[in-house]
Amino acid sequence: MVHLFFNPKTIAIIGATADPRKFGNAVTVNLLENENLQSEIFPINPKSDTILGLRSYPTVLDVEKNIDLAIVLVPSKVVPSVIDQCIEKQVNRIIIISAGFGEINEDGKRIEKEIAKKSKDVGIKIIGPNCVGIQNIDISMNASFVLTPIKGNVSMVTQSGSFGAACLYEMWWQGLGFSKFANLGNMIDVNLTDLLEYFIEDENTKVACIYLENVVDGRNFYNKLKQLTLKKPTVVLKGGRTAAGMKSASSHTGSIATDYKTLRAAVNQAGATLCENLMDYIAAIKAFSFLPLPSNKKIAFFTNSGGSAVLFSDHLEEFGLELVEFKEEFKEIIDPHLIPLVKKVNPLDMIAGATGEHFYHITKAMLENPEIGIVVPCAVIPTFLEMTQDEHYKAVIKAWNESGRKKPILPIFLSGNLLEPTKKIAEKEKAPLFLSPREAAFAAKVLVDRMMLIQK
Amino acid sequence: MVHLFFNPKTIAIIGATADPRKFGNAVTVNLLENENLQSEIFPINPKSDTILGLRSYPTVLDVEKNIDLAIVLVPSKVVPSVIDQCIEKQVNRIIIISAGFGEINEDGKRIEKEIAKKSKDVGIKIIGPNCVGIQNIDISMNASFVLTPIKGNVSMVTQSGSFGAACLYEMWWQGLGFSKFANLGNMIDVNLTDLLEYFIEDENTKVACIYLENVVDGRNFYNKLKQLTLKKPTVVLKGGRTAAGMKSASSHTGSIATDYKTLRAAVNQAGATLCENLMDYIAAIKAFSFLPLPSNKKIAFFTNSGGSAVLFSDHLEEFGLELVEFKEEFKEIIDPHLIPLVKKVNPLDMIAGATGEHFYHITKAMLENPEIGIVVPCAVIPTFLEMTQDEHYKAVIKAWNESGRKKPILPIFLSGNLLEPTKKIAEKEKAPLFLSPREAAFAAKVLVDRMMLIQK
Repeated sequence: MVHLFFNPKTIAIIGATADPRKFGNAVTVNLLENENLQSEIFPINPKSDTILGLRSYPTVLDVEKNIDLAIVLVPSKVVPSVIDQCIEKQVNRIIIISAGFGEINEDGKRIEKEIAKKSKDVGIKIIGPNCVGIQNIDISMNASFVLTPIKGNVSMVTQSGSFGAACLYEMWWQGLGFSKFANLGNMIDVNLTDLLEYFIEDENTKVACIYLENVVDGRNFYNKLKQLTLKKPTVVLKGGRTAAGMKSASSHTGSIATDYKTLRAAVNQAGATLCENLMDYIAAIKAFSFLPLPSNKKIAFFTNSGGSAVLFSDHLEEFGLELVEFKEEFKEIIDPHLIPLVKKVNPLDMIAGATGEHFYHITKAMLENPEIGIVVPCAVIPTFLEMTQDEHYKAVIKAWNESGRKKPILPIFLSGNLLEPTKKIAEKEKAPLFLSPREAAFAAKVLVDRMMLIQK
Repeated sequence: MVHLFFNPKTIAIIGATADPRKFGNAVTVNLLENENLQSEIFPINPKSDTILGLRSYPTVLDVEKNIDLAIVLVPSKVVPSVIDQCIEKQVNRIIIISAGFGEINEDGKRIEKEIAKKSKDVGIKIIGPNCVGIQNIDISMNASFVLTPIKGNVSMVTQSGSFGAACLYEMWWQGLGFSKFANLGNMIDVNLTDLLEYFIEDENTKVACIYLENVVDGRNFYNKLKQLTLKKPTVVLKGGRTAAGMKSASSHTGSIATDYKTLRAAVNQAGATLCENLMDYIAAIKAFSFLPLPSNKKIAFFTNSGGSAVLFSDHLEEFGLELVEFKEEFKEIIDPHLIPLVKKVNPLDMIAGATGEHFYHITKAMLENPEIGIVVPCAVIPTFLEMTQDEHYKAVIKAWNESGRKKPILPIFLSGNLLEPTKKIAEKEKAPLFLSPREAAFAAKVLVDRMMLIQK
């Protein structure tokens, strides 16, 4: 049902324009600048003959071919008549990006209902209104006015377009790529559950993530969420968890926000990963996108920074997880690769002089030890003893690559303005990078939670 | 007592070397490369005549001048004899950077005690052993083997050197500058309380921050912390809050970590800001370093991103704070500066089309409204309608500068890989930048907490 939105052969942009001060321009540019997109684009604008080098049509009715997807960007008062034309043209799918409907007043809600009914009667599905659009990065389609992210295995459905964009840019910065992106706006037709259904079947979606404020069809949503979660890790962030947040959410979407207690129970019951802030949300998505699940929940941590070992131990215990105790055989294995002063305990403080070479051997030994489920290397990037700023991360990833990436690693690199060389390696290697002890401990928790769900 | 450590006229580096594979080199380079440092430097190394262009002395006894500060970097087994020479030379202060003492075994603890006793008998104060050193950025003195941060108003004392370095680099990335930095290592003499005493008097320290694992003199620590907090905002992070963390801390410093419940009660009672993770710690330091205190606790939030408004509202309520309700007069003031669709409520969702110009006028109006104590501008950086990527932040800071920076603002900019231009402005303007709704809400909480402490 939703599939065709993401895979249209023909796209009409109603409200396309060469004027860069309009959203109709941003969407047109985004669709045209991705040269790999195979879909045929038809700009619709009665005031132009050509737009950005393409022939422009006065109305969608003037296009000779069938239209799979019409994207509507005209002012709200013109939208109803444009929808009538789309119905007459028998377009298959419509995305209404234009705002100024149910989110502003009762009159807007009334118009939304009329549009929804008319379209439903003829079997046309609608996303929107009041949204930023959708993207299918697999086929290089950016049918939105936000930037095209990098390609990857994460698919997101969000009730806030700009917050979705913020996640997209943040994930880009962290080397995380997208498969599908959908902002649903006021949801007069296609809703969150429809997208969950799509993500269940979509092969390129390995990790699903949701930002939501209100759920309209509780039972159905829960059932699909459960199905999706059993198949793929699913990360959920709910806006409007408090009275103040719910009030703000109602003002945002024009709907009554869903009660958090109910939603939390449903998400937990379905086995999805529930987050309560942006940082946790990104950390969970990052863990699932980059890493395999562990085969056991015992964690081994090593570092060149004793304080970070202490903080990580604290966060781990708070999340109900434990560091494994090293056996004598393992101590013998790591002994030749440690500076003499180092105590062979977990967390393993390899002290400030530890080099990339030390990190390589310890990572390798921990990856090879079947009693360790998750390996957590942690470094404060050194600026002394001739060490280079990326050697520790490089060494960790080398050992991980050689092991076939079968065990999850959560490399924590604490270094603010010195991080850039390490970040470059992470991008190139498509490997994860965690930025604080708490972030990595949270990632360990979500991986273990999912391992236990799958084992049940 | 501590003052002379940070303001020595003469410094001997015992274990100075031209060999870049040694810590003694890193410290020597750090001291020499800051050209503004007025202190005279004396490298001590029996195997060299000159080191990095300076005359080198076989022992500290061979230096003609009095030595205010001796920095010891020789292997641990040589340290006792070097201390004897320092005593004979009557140096004033000693920093022992060398590791391999109480943190590794009982023998190390015994040697520590001997050194401490001998020095105490002749009135020499010691920092360390097992530390990265200290810095006084005001006089361009970096007596440590970690990098020199930017100059500012934050002073830090830390029990973990590498974690202190991690904070230093993270704060650098966030445009936050240092006045004093001290890592105390095993604290055989100078302890946390001594540093708090120094921060109370030190004029350039506007914000004090502490990372600690164990407190040796509870009552005295509490009294000094209370005095310091009444004078200056003080931010505390405790490593070893859980059983696992405490175990790890004992392994780290060789001492028994302080119980968290007791410490938390003391810190709260003293009125200091207690944080439980790195991100909160940096957020609190950032708020106090960049911002004045509010005159009331009512908060106003505006944004181009509805979802971010919802999340901020949630976090604010969780921290016990509230958004102010806009009065009719205020709605009239802001009305001409809003896109017609915008609802004039707090949080104010100015929708995606809001420009820098809109942000400027709303910031200005909120700064001028005495019923608003803290202004929170929030943007997802737009990539459409010809907006530039830094215009929103620029506009906010322009209004803040024009108002004389008398009211705190907490600008949240959500944009990952698009953040760079905004970050550059923040650095240039020495203005704060918050990276998530939760971070800004936490910053609001610590400012309000301190406002209430001061008003009491």
